Amino acid sequence: MRFSSLAELAAACGNVPAGDDAVAAAVAARDATLTKPAGSLGRLEEAVAWLARWQGRSPPRLERVEVLVFAGNHGVTAQGVSAYPAAVTEQMVANFAAGGAAINQLARIADAQLQVLPLALDRPTADFTAAPAMTEREFLTAVETGFAAVTPDADLVCLGEMGIGNTTAAAALAAALFGGGAARWAGRGTGVDDAGLARKRAAIDRALSRHAACLADPLACAATFGGRELAAILGATLAARQRRIPVLLDGFVCTAAAAPLAKLHAGALDHAMAAHVSAEAGHRMLLEELAMRPLLDLDMRLGEGSGAAVAVLVLRAALACHLGMATFTQAGVAEKSDG
Amino acid sequence: MRFSSLAELAAACGNVPAGDDAVAAAVAARDATLTKPAGSLGRLEEAVAWLARWQGRSPPRLERVEVLVFAGNHGVTAQGVSAYPAAVTEQMVANFAAGGAAINQLARIADAQLQVLPLALDRPTADFTAAPAMTEREFLTAVETGFAAVTPDADLVCLGEMGIGNTTAAAALAAALFGGGAARWAGRGTGVDDAGLARKRAAIDRALSRHAACLADPLACAATFGGRELAAILGATLAARQRRIPVLLDGFVCTAAAAPLAKLHAGALDHAMAAHVSAEAGHRMLLEELAMRPLLDLDMRLGEGSGAAVAVLVLRAALACHLGMATFTQAGVAEKSDG
Repeated sequence: MRFSSLAELAAACGNVPAGDDAVAAAVAARDATLTKPAGSLGRLEEAVAWLARWQGRSPPRLERVEVLVFAGNHGVTAQGVSAYPAAVTEQMVANFAAGGAAINQLARIADAQLQVLPLALDRPTADFTAAPAMTEREFLTAVETGFAAVTPDADLVCLGEMGIGNTTAAAALAAALFGGGAARWAGRGTGVDDAGLARKRAAIDRALSRHAACLADPLACAATFGGRELAAILGATLAARQRRIPVLLDGFVCTAAAAPLAKLHAGALDHAMAAHVSAEAGHRMLLEELAMRPLLDLDMRLGEGSGAAVAVLVLRAALACHLGMATFTQAGVAEKSDG
Repeated sequence: MRFSSLAELAAACGNVPAGDDAVAAAVAARDATLTKPAGSLGRLEEAVAWLARWQGRSPPRLERVEVLVFAGNHGVTAQGVSAYPAAVTEQMVANFAAGGAAINQLARIADAQLQVLPLALDRPTADFTAAPAMTEREFLTAVETGFAAVTPDADLVCLGEMGIGNTTAAAALAAALFGGGAARWAGRGTGVDDAGLARKRAAIDRALSRHAACLADPLACAATFGGRELAAILGATLAARQRRIPVLLDGFVCTAAAAPLAKLHAGALDHAMAAHVSAEAGHRMLLEELAMRPLLDLDMRLGEGSGAAVAVLVLRAALACHLGMATFTQAGVAEKSDG
């Protein structure tokens, strides 16, 4: 998919398929026959219906699960906003390739295919305290990369990211979309100290003032405050929706990256589940803004798609119950008495 | 293990090994070298340290994971407290044997050995609104059964239960131990209607008045208000502690069953993790009373050890990271800058 302008991308974001209610109802109907009190598997039952609704298939399947990790570098690191040097982005990409990162272990245990996509790491985005992070063309190219990364026959796509400085970008983007300034959205990221956090907040607030003219346009905000890996996540989330593939969003950065879609079009993230709520300060609030309820709450704040990969395990458990359980009739178990 | 009296059992409950701080510290030391910001895997890191502390082994292992599901019948069902007929306990035990229940699917996906132990299903406990549920000997026999069910070389034991009427027993036991009466602890169990819930509450409050003399003795409370499967869970939790095996407690019934141990001896449940918080009304409060933070919150309320089995998946993910990740040195990744 090629997008020639923000306007063309915005149009594509607004023109997306709905979920399949009939298929979700078929899942719920089978669930009601299984040997358990109605609804007693809670979010496991909801998750299976959600997978089915977006796959358009009852029962749903989880044969091909993808983890896409996008990596980018950020000019705003010049402001001293991160606890780690910017070189770590590329070093971690090498670590992904060598199999040594958390996401390698988690993707393996989740039986998911891991793809890592570095985005022009040798050309960091501009420092957004001085200029928009990306030109329109740079932004759209990153969106296109994310869009193209989604395998058309995937059953589920997990999105993740790596990029030193990207919680600063995500916080700025969240502030641009939802208001409240840096104080509301900036947290410690990989573990910045008090002085670093103060620099991070100041950088974000300076950028919000400088780029006040773009705040009404969600995609312009994504280009101005985001990063290439965030843009790619937006593109991948859109591609998955067009291809009817459910999405697991990882943490704060990932959710912020996808948030412009929801600002453009109500329901644009209905095919996306928040895999977990991160310990990064702004994530819980961001999920509230998006009315998304996270599946897990494990104090994770690593990124890399790590929380999404753990959530895949829960979805596999949910699907195993749905597919494998006996019905009341098959098992000869009495159903609920009349009340 | 044979217990000749409640006093002898109480003595055994008070004489349990401590966790191994040195081993937990060794896990934390390795964690600090792995390619991630310190602590960024959150509860996954805590879980690995917890497994190590109680296994006394760094790294810990999860080769033999057991799910023990104890089943019992309850005389208090005569009071119309459940949405399902009492015969369902035995029918579900047959369903477990045939592989058709949720826990069969979940134990398989968690690579855990499932053992189902029905406890004298043809002899329900006494209706505790009229008499203690069990005699001292009946209670101790069930405790012994649970104690003996724990395989000495298990790496982790998941505890679960099945018993129509047992959320009534659990709520009565929780009220006996922590106060507040039925209004605080009784919920809808498998889905009782308003009239049934009113009967359930009335039965519990009647029983609390009738047996007021035993409330100061946690084990007497377990015998008076509990059930055989709850007693077995208490016994299994104690056996696991004596054998240095970490325990995952499932939902409300399971937690109530183990709670007398904590009342007898502070720290008696330190080797036990709350796998999840159930949607059953009293569970969250019970976990607060015990200062236990659940790993998962998935609106599950099925029992059978189902929440514990899902939590095993998270522990396996945590251990995979701990065992498989590269160190900063191995991966050539720069560590955190000085602040």
